[in-house]
Amino acid sequence: MSAHYNVCVIGLGSMGMGAARSCIQAGLNTWGVDINPQSCQALLEAGAKGAGSNPVVFAPELDAVVLLVVNAAQVNAILFGENALAPHLKPGTAVMVSSTISADDACKIAERLAQNGVLMLDAPVSGGAIKAAQGDMTVMASGAEETFTRLEPVLNAVAGKVYRIGSEIGKGSTVKIVHQLLAGVHIAVAAEAMALAARAGIPLETMYDVVTHAAGNSWMFENRMQHVLDGDYTPKSAVDIFVKDLGLVSETARTLKFPLPLASTALNMFTSASNAGFGREDDSAVIKTFSGITLPGAKGEEA
Amino acid sequence: MSAHYNVCVIGLGSMGMGAARSCIQAGLNTWGVDINPQSCQALLEAGAKGAGSNPVVFAPELDAVVLLVVNAAQVNAILFGENALAPHLKPGTAVMVSSTISADDACKIAERLAQNGVLMLDAPVSGGAIKAAQGDMTVMASGAEETFTRLEPVLNAVAGKVYRIGSEIGKGSTVKIVHQLLAGVHIAVAAEAMALAARAGIPLETMYDVVTHAAGNSWMFENRMQHVLDGDYTPKSAVDIFVKDLGLVSETARTLKFPLPLASTALNMFTSASNAGFGREDDSAVIKTFSGITLPGAKGEEA
Repeated sequence: MSAHYNVCVIGLGSMGMGAARSCIQAGLNTWGVDINPQSCQALLEAGAKGAGSNPVVFAPELDAVVLLVVNAAQVNAILFGENALAPHLKPGTAVMVSSTISADDACKIAERLAQNGVLMLDAPVSGGAIKAAQGDMTVMASGAEETFTRLEPVLNAVAGKVYRIGSEIGKGSTVKIVHQLLAGVHIAVAAEAMALAARAGIPLETMYDVVTHAAGNSWMFENRMQHVLDGDYTPKSAVDIFVKDLGLVSETARTLKFPLPLASTALNMFTSASNAGFGREDDSAVIKTFSGITLPGAKGEEA
Repeated sequence: MSAHYNVCVIGLGSMGMGAARSCIQAGLNTWGVDINPQSCQALLEAGAKGAGSNPVVFAPELDAVVLLVVNAAQVNAILFGENALAPHLKPGTAVMVSSTISADDACKIAERLAQNGVLMLDAPVSGGAIKAAQGDMTVMASGAEETFTRLEPVLNAVAGKVYRIGSEIGKGSTVKIVHQLLAGVHIAVAAEAMALAARAGIPLETMYDVVTHAAGNSWMFENRMQHVLDGDYTPKSAVDIFVKDLGLVSETARTLKFPLPLASTALNMFTSASNAGFGREDDSAVIKTFSGITLPGAKGEEA
């Protein structure tokens, strides 16, 4: 089946590039789309059938599209904006929307795709760049049984684990948003705790060692506070991503009329960090909003 | 050495009982103290040299004391209150204060013990009842080199890992308090996230499965949200423990003049839960402060 399966991955950032390479490695005929010509060139060198800035060119050949762009505005622009992709897709093509978007946006996009006879899987992903590169992403997806079936070669190629949240579009996005609530608060509280330790004169390496071996640990603490120890704020995932994602959390809470005391506090912290000029730094740079402490410098600077 | 080593564990709750049993299993002559006669009887049956409500009886024979009572008030009452233990200890006896207390309290207690010629290790513990029972607690300790040496047989018996935070009394307590900041916020945000998922109609078992296999996981989420799924709020560790511990976090922040946006929010959440009558339930009962959702009932009730 997969020998003649044609897929296009749109958005060749760290996640999309990993997904596209995984599709190539799984033997799928793979196209890539990005506004960055270097990303397109890299994917061509990895064996893509084609790559460029305009997906309309490949549209008629596709069985599936994977969208890994930044937000709902970009998804809408690609599918329905100028040079809209949706009208050029064959009826029955399956579009896997893997950007983190709100449940409301997921529903609206699915409705518009349905008008073109195109299927949609509401399928956000998790796992970071390394897992994406290994074809080991986590996918939390909702959609019709038929859509899951159509996308099976893609899901097999890119995902280590697929959670089926049901048939209702929006449920996949909601699960991702609840996940991001946890991820965002965990990064912010990791920063808050390490900042307090710095203020109290506790060696941060010791604090890190204690927490990562005890019940106070989180995946994010262990991953992100290493960046703080290293004084390395090169963005793996940027502060502004959590301004966006905790904004989606907040939007979801408003829609559901539900209070989120911790998530709204964390959103304020990331917004302050972005406002202070750290928006494009690693999300662990939220720790820089705490004054009156000295944080480790970059290793090179200490030498 | 340990054949003639005499230790008394004061406070035979889940942690203290585990520590005392671990001392017995390591071949130390072990005494136990608790106001609950059943706990004393259980420890005698496990091989204790003695057990009762008054440590003064055993005091002159002791090389070491381990305090695992609830708070600084209890530590002070035992050491310096009516029937004060401190004046009855031999000079050079080492007291391991393993209750979670503030750095200020740790310093004051160490000073008063020093007036009796008694050594103190500022040595809070972590790991929960199961690890305590296995002699596998995590100890985060500060104190003089000599005190660590005196307590070596006890530390070997009760701890899987000993973090040496330095010689300054108060540093051990501060590390524990920073750890509790993380633990408390992680429980509260786990509750907040699961409550939002319930509100959005996401099956909680699915939400739990996704989070525990993704970057949004924390040790506390994985441990405590299982209680929510089971509808079982039998206290492993109670809401009121985090009212106390996040209170210590807040006190530490005030002393250091340091803002803690997330920890203070989480303290409000646990205080609300206690105020609503859930203080003695499992700390995961903080989720019950969210209205407008239906949580899983106890398994027995569903049958």
